[in-house]
Amino acid sequence: MDELKVFTGNANPGLARAICDYLNIPLGKCEVFSFSNENIFVRIMENVRQRDVFVAQPICSPVNQSLVELLIMLDALKRASAGRITAVVPYYGYGRTDKKDQPRVPITARLIADLLTVAGANRLLTVDLHAGQIQGFFNIPVDELTAQYLLRDYFLKKGLNSDLVVVATDIGISKRARDLATQLHVPLAIMEKRRLGNEDRTETLNVIGEVNKKVALTVDDEIDTAGSLTNTVNTLLERGVREVYACCTHPVFSGPAIQRIAASPVQEVVVTDTIPVNGSKRLDKITVLSIAPLLGEAIHRIHTGQSVGAMFEQ
Amino acid sequence: MDELKVFTGNANPGLARAICDYLNIPLGKCEVFSFSNENIFVRIMENVRQRDVFVAQPICSPVNQSLVELLIMLDALKRASAGRITAVVPYYGYGRTDKKDQPRVPITARLIADLLTVAGANRLLTVDLHAGQIQGFFNIPVDELTAQYLLRDYFLKKGLNSDLVVVATDIGISKRARDLATQLHVPLAIMEKRRLGNEDRTETLNVIGEVNKKVALTVDDEIDTAGSLTNTVNTLLERGVREVYACCTHPVFSGPAIQRIAASPVQEVVVTDTIPVNGSKRLDKITVLSIAPLLGEAIHRIHTGQSVGAMFEQ
Amino acid sequence: MDELKVFTGNANPGLARAICDYLNIPLGKCEVFSFSNENIFVRIMENVRQRDVFVAQPICSPVNQSLVELLIMLDALKRASAGRITAVVPYYGYGRTDKKDQPRVPITARLIADLLTVAGANRLLTVDLHAGQIQGFFNIPVDELTAQYLLRDYFLKKGLNSDLVVVATDIGISKRARDLATQLHVPLAIMEKRRLGNEDRTETLNVIGEVNKKVALTVDDEIDTAGSLTNTVNTLLERGVREVYACCTHPVFSGPAIQRIAASPVQEVVVTDTIPVNGSKRLDKITVLSIAPLLGEAIHRIHTGQSVGAMFEQ
Amino acid sequence: MDELKVFTGNANPGLARAICDYLNIPLGKCEVFSFSNENIFVRIMENVRQRDVFVAQPICSPVNQSLVELLIMLDALKRASAGRITAVVPYYGYGRTDKKDQPRVPITARLIADLLTVAGANRLLTVDLHAGQIQGFFNIPVDELTAQYLLRDYFLKKGLNSDLVVVATDIGISKRARDLATQLHVPLAIMEKRRLGNEDRTETLNVIGEVNKKVALTVDDEIDTAGSLTNTVNTLLERGVREVYACCTHPVFSGPAIQRIAASPVQEVVVTDTIPVNGSKRLDKITVLSIAPLLGEAIHRIHTGQSVGAMFEQ
Amino acid sequence: MDELKVFTGNANPGLARAICDYLNIPLGKCEVFSFSNENIFVRIMENVRQRDVFVAQPICSPVNQSLVELLIMLDALKRASAGRITAVVPYYGYGRTDKKDQPRVPITARLIADLLTVAGANRLLTVDLHAGQIQGFFNIPVDELTAQYLLRDYFLKKGLNSDLVVVATDIGISKRARDLATQLHVPLAIMEKRRLGNEDRTETLNVIGEVNKKVALTVDDEIDTAGSLTNTVNTLLERGVREVYACCTHPVFSGPAIQRIAASPVQEVVVTDTIPVNGSKRLDKITVLSIAPLLGEAIHRIHTGQSVGAMFEQ
Amino acid sequence: MDELKVFTGNANPGLARAICDYLNIPLGKCEVFSFSNENIFVRIMENVRQRDVFVAQPICSPVNQSLVELLIMLDALKRASAGRITAVVPYYGYGRTDKKDQPRVPITARLIADLLTVAGANRLLTVDLHAGQIQGFFNIPVDELTAQYLLRDYFLKKGLNSDLVVVATDIGISKRARDLATQLHVPLAIMEKRRLGNEDRTETLNVIGEVNKKVALTVDDEIDTAGSLTNTVNTLLERGVREVYACCTHPVFSGPAIQRIAASPVQEVVVTDTIPVNGSKRLDKITVLSIAPLLGEAIHRIHTGQSVGAMFEQ
Repeated sequence: MDELKVFTGNANPGLARAICDYLNIPLGKCEVFSFSNENIFVRIMENVRQRDVFVAQPICSPVNQSLVELLIMLDALKRASAGRITAVVPYYGYGRTDKKDQPRVPITARLIADLLTVAGANRLLTVDLHAGQIQGFFNIPVDELTAQYLLRDYFLKKGLNSDLVVVATDIGISKRARDLATQLHVPLAIMEKRRLGNEDRTETLNVIGEVNKKVALTVDDEIDTAGSLTNTVNTLLERGVREVYACCTHPVFSGPAIQRIAASPVQEVVVTDTIPVNGSKRLDKITVLSIAPLLGEAIHRIHTGQSVGAMFEQ
Repeated sequence: MDELKVFTGNANPGLARAICDYLNIPLGKCEVFSFSNENIFVRIMENVRQRDVFVAQPICSPVNQSLVELLIMLDALKRASAGRITAVVPYYGYGRTDKKDQPRVPITARLIADLLTVAGANRLLTVDLHAGQIQGFFNIPVDELTAQYLLRDYFLKKGLNSDLVVVATDIGISKRARDLATQLHVPLAIMEKRRLGNEDRTETLNVIGEVNKKVALTVDDEIDTAGSLTNTVNTLLERGVREVYACCTHPVFSGPAIQRIAASPVQEVVVTDTIPVNGSKRLDKITVLSIAPLLGEAIHRIHTGQSVGAMFEQ
Repeated sequence: MDELKVFTGNANPGLARAICDYLNIPLGKCEVFSFSNENIFVRIMENVRQRDVFVAQPICSPVNQSLVELLIMLDALKRASAGRITAVVPYYGYGRTDKKDQPRVPITARLIADLLTVAGANRLLTVDLHAGQIQGFFNIPVDELTAQYLLRDYFLKKGLNSDLVVVATDIGISKRARDLATQLHVPLAIMEKRRLGNEDRTETLNVIGEVNKKVALTVDDEIDTAGSLTNTVNTLLERGVREVYACCTHPVFSGPAIQRIAASPVQEVVVTDTIPVNGSKRLDKITVLSIAPLLGEAIHRIHTGQSVGAMFEQ
Repeated sequence: MDELKVFTGNANPGLARAICDYLNIPLGKCEVFSFSNENIFVRIMENVRQRDVFVAQPICSPVNQSLVELLIMLDALKRASAGRITAVVPYYGYGRTDKKDQPRVPITARLIADLLTVAGANRLLTVDLHAGQIQGFFNIPVDELTAQYLLRDYFLKKGLNSDLVVVATDIGISKRARDLATQLHVPLAIMEKRRLGNEDRTETLNVIGEVNKKVALTVDDEIDTAGSLTNTVNTLLERGVREVYACCTHPVFSGPAIQRIAASPVQEVVVTDTIPVNGSKRLDKITVLSIAPLLGEAIHRIHTGQSVGAMFEQ
Repeated sequence: MDELKVFTGNANPGLARAICDYLNIPLGKCEVFSFSNENIFVRIMENVRQRDVFVAQPICSPVNQSLVELLIMLDALKRASAGRITAVVPYYGYGRTDKKDQPRVPITARLIADLLTVAGANRLLTVDLHAGQIQGFFNIPVDELTAQYLLRDYFLKKGLNSDLVVVATDIGISKRARDLATQLHVPLAIMEKRRLGNEDRTETLNVIGEVNKKVALTVDDEIDTAGSLTNTVNTLLERGVREVYACCTHPVFSGPAIQRIAASPVQEVVVTDTIPVNGSKRLDKITVLSIAPLLGEAIHRIHTGQSVGAMFEQ
Repeated sequence: MDELKVFTGNANPGLARAICDYLNIPLGKCEVFSFSNENIFVRIMENVRQRDVFVAQPICSPVNQSLVELLIMLDALKRASAGRITAVVPYYGYGRTDKKDQPRVPITARLIADLLTVAGANRLLTVDLHAGQIQGFFNIPVDELTAQYLLRDYFLKKGLNSDLVVVATDIGISKRARDLATQLHVPLAIMEKRRLGNEDRTETLNVIGEVNKKVALTVDDEIDTAGSLTNTVNTLLERGVREVYACCTHPVFSGPAIQRIAASPVQEVVVTDTIPVNGSKRLDKITVLSIAPLLGEAIHRIHTGQSVGAMFEQ
């Protein structure tokens, strides 16, 4: 496999540049822009024949634009005779629509897998999928990295451990929370949303497990509107928690998220830069850890045929 | 094939309703909306098992949103066991990116064909593709309707024929213009954009063919920013044309289009409603002919196994 | 779609007969046997051209034999010009290998999906998948039924509700347990397996949530060796639980399972017959509810184009 | 990618040898012949494992024989474990059947794309497709070369430019003609075939644009029966053109073509050797420019991973 | 499935007409012709939407023309929205190239299967394949009819049985010969071609089995150049056979076949009309049995969902 | 292509080790085992990214277990980013189900081909397929080795040739027997099983060809229950044969095979180790020749791009 090249669309060019810095190569030259009629156009500005090409583009806001940009870039690279094309999708959007839990709904996370493949991706490199099963939506090789060790190390350094309890903000995230709790050697609690009765429309938030007088660290794969997060924080404080830290891999931060976080008594929200956190989103209490070295190292290993799994052997 | 059902996304619901009126059936019930995180969600609200389902959705502004909506609807219908799914795409966006005319660019119109097919479309029904060859981008059956007879009849009724010349606004559209000229039994002229010399960056617009003292009818498959149109109108008037009418199938009307048309001495711009022309776009000099009866009739014929080609036998 | 036909291999013929009884049709005639060299041979003994064919076969013990039998039956039916082939797989074996949670392991649940599809299945009908995402491993329509209402109704009738707590035997099953708890309007607790320290190889079983003096109902999608189940029962009793009931959909009952259940203080183990529970497995404390009416009704609805989802609207 | 190898069938072995001369390698050894029963048989006579293999074969007369030869060669090479197979198809036959312009006709140019792909081609290298969109009929990378600069340089050398007008022999070729006109910095005229009235079966040939007293250079992608060409020549001379030169890329020269050209007052017909022009076809007024250096250079660049597009940067 | 329609190309229109006579329907209207440039063009002249369409076309002389005609017809029918397309290929050309018995040769019989499938065939109906395994080259349903009973009945009627021996003209055909021998309750002999020594280039023809003073009936799937046949006849007569009859399903009759048969002491050659035997090929000693009723009956059964296998239950 | 690696499942690990010895490389590290619930689990224990991987696993007893093991290993290797995966299947089980010789039966040998391909095999390496056409069931490259020269050399060394006759144990194997007879320069005889009359259920075994007073060498591709073999031996001895040797490539030896061979007057049975012949199967009169050097050499040649066919040029 020849020379390594990394290209980016418009979804998170800063991350792509940081990856290239790690790899010590220049970012691949290409134009990715929209015409007046909103049609995205792509032109790869350097020869990619037989090259080992990586396209870094999370499927984040503007979500559908980012997705279609990525698909068109894959098509252009495929037709330009790239040797191997790896879609580097640090945030796999639509990941929450990964099963049919009611009649006649899509499984969009599988659809995305098929779209990426048909457009030309030969491999996927991604970070903390909403569900591990999404790997099985692909028949091309998938390398899934995790930000868990990054987050763990951050909190270990912070020295909160003695009184800490890891809290899953939802039943659905309890397995991932357990993994972090295990890593930190602290106990686990789980938030459970429940309607009280058949007629009652209001939901209560139960805390399953011991939290009183502890320091809580909530964990989730992503923070979207921050609604669950702020409800969790409030409930935990009511139950006697001393202070609450939050962490997640993907800072989606849509709609009222930033306002809610600003207003919430949460101590700190720690995220990574799989999705850019720019401008007015950069609150003091939001800490952004860079995922670029992890992605850069994985790309280096994929390119040179070294084990990616070995990066996470503890 | 069981019962016929027509669904729509958010790109042109008015057209879908008009199609259902023609067919005398209610519009299929479904929810198609975006969450706060911009993820589109689709829920089909009625049983579609074994039904003959049509999804009406042009790939028009917001282009990528419309496209992804359509793909997700197809996925939901496929997984809901629809008997046959026809994507009804009155305006096939990205149609102009149909070939590689420079190195390392995509063929997005082919990509779209693959995306629709992988998402679940069993057939395509469309109107006036940018190039007929786009039919060959599909391996599922395609029915392409044309608005040409609608436009012809409109201008025949108007009684402009004696002095008329049909004008292609560009070399690329000359074949379609010739067809309309033949239909109207009038001559043809062609606009040719050309840079004058090697160093010169300015383009001139040549008129190939006789236009002096005539009434001109420009024709195109779509009007995008209306730049070519207004240049053509000005050039024709300079060359002695008495008045200029314009027609096209698809009113893309992006960016400065409406302003330019308002300011242009063009007499009238006749379009169809493959793309909605709403609100401030509804200038007095813009006439919108409805494509709904054509689409409705085609859907009826597809559903009942009658010839669609026979609709256009003259 | 013509006449409905149901065939079965050797994995659970009793269930297939019960389904046919519900549907009031005879079981389809076919030979499915192994030669001396262990090669499975299949001969469909009646005409299936254009028929709507269902093959009922769980992927249960002998697991690989059952799987290959099913694949060969699908091939035979496809080549015999069956009109539509639905694989009815009440127990989807290999469902637990649904993601790569360590380097260089397979995603066998996805592989099975591809094998079924390439062999000729046009649809899948199944019950309580290990993870809902397995639906997304398929690009053919999947109807997933659930035994949850069957189990709920059984325990409602039993009248245990006042003091009941639903207990997930593992973090991974907590969402399904929550659903049953919600259905029964009782609280939820979750068992958490954890190694105590870095060097320590022994696991402790934590109970997250309140269980003291309650009656516990453990829930899981399947009971395999009954190891988790019996550990859970013991731990719950140590924590002050009065008595423990257990339920699951799929009675895998491999290895020491029956012995363990017989020896355990568990009150009753309620399962369905997606997998046959025969002979010496039929302990008094094991109650088998039949899934045949649910499967029969779903087949009837698939065949006649009625909603399957409507079966579960509450 | 290992060693480069070029094979040929029987359609244009002279061109393949010229390509090998350019590349300074021997032509690959293989037998391609027909048995008495007309079945084509292929035997590759040297090891091609992991080799970078090119098969040079235009789809020209005998058209269907050439096509099937090519397909069988691809199959043999695929099964012989060739590392990468590029179909080198200097003339892409059936290119004119590239859209459905009437009901129930094939899109044979797309069919050919699928046949080549299913037989084993990993890439296509071709010259001047009838329509650029044919590239989009493929999902494998396509490199399309153009003979335009070869033809331009020939006519620049000839020094005809002062009075020259480029004439498209048909509306359909007008874009390609415009490109050549732009290259030569001369104006453009377009021939338009038209039936005069509804009942009238005779066609007139209009000239759109100025041609009087000029020297005309007609351009087309191919010359088939030479009917359009000779009609164009006659009409142009009637309209006061002084002399007419003709050029095209592909000398199909079927049926009466050679006779017509011999009898026509056309000055010179300049073509390339994508299709062999042998024996009695070698009229004095027919000039054949060799495409072999272009194809050889492109093969060299594909093999070594250099840009093919850079060959045409002006 | 709607109305049944049968179309034909130019390979054996007489057979198609005879099939339609059996079915009592008119032959489907279509144009299948070649332009001057040898490009085949197809136009289906009647509506085929949702129809159950059969295309009758053996892959016989002109072999490659017949094959490409068939492929293009399939493409046209697929794009014309035919409901189901069955390729009716009474003689499956290239069937003898069904394995790699030397390095770097194609498996053309498999290639043909892929070509037919990719062009649009949903099913295959054929007669006496060269090897039964060719059915396995397809993943679409295949119905293979046999002319064996037709031939058996002809010879039973003739009353040759008392002294008869069936002779396989080659080791490769011995299984089929055995089947006919079994049907006729007569013994079997086998011709074996063998080179005598390592250096010796001449082949001897051994007869394995008893033939002296018998009447021989040679059997083969096809007679090509009639070389094996005439050698077999001569050898048998030398070994004391009294008279020789020959039969086969497919009268390929290429090259010197007719001359050889005319000159040979063979009594009679009995064939079917899967391939047309016209004009000068119609020797007195050649008897042609029509396969049309068998094909017509099979088409009727496929169309109405009846068993085709039941036609051959004895 | 990077480093060569050979892995094995549990079907014939001894052969895999012998292949690695030939290649002078260590056997690849992996775990392939079954859980208590019979689910096979695979873990590749060393990095295989970009490596040239071979998986050696015959589809032999336990047949379905071996098959599914192989499929799951292929899936794990594909997802682990192996560069190229060759399934090395010395014995291709289910090979006898290679055609539909009665209605509504599978073509399992084709199904197996599709299963291997969909699971991730890029190539197949195998030995003496039941029918050469099985190669055509694949669209990936297949290298088929033959044990014929191994067997020939063994018998040449033994010096039996003067009086030898090669005997096909069945009409179906006659071609392979002829090839061995040609190799040994001895005559051929063929066993023919036949029912005597219409009502008679008993089969007679005819010998076609001369065997009296000769030494017979029976040949088959595999010996399954040894029923045909022992019947053949008895019949040959009745017809005056002096002694009988037997050989085949694949020692399936199912059911009563070993007992029958032990009891039979056959002199010696010579086989290879494509299938392990262990423990009580190791009769004195059974000679096992190792196929490992042939497979090892072929793997070496595939890995280094050398001709495999050249291994068999005589």
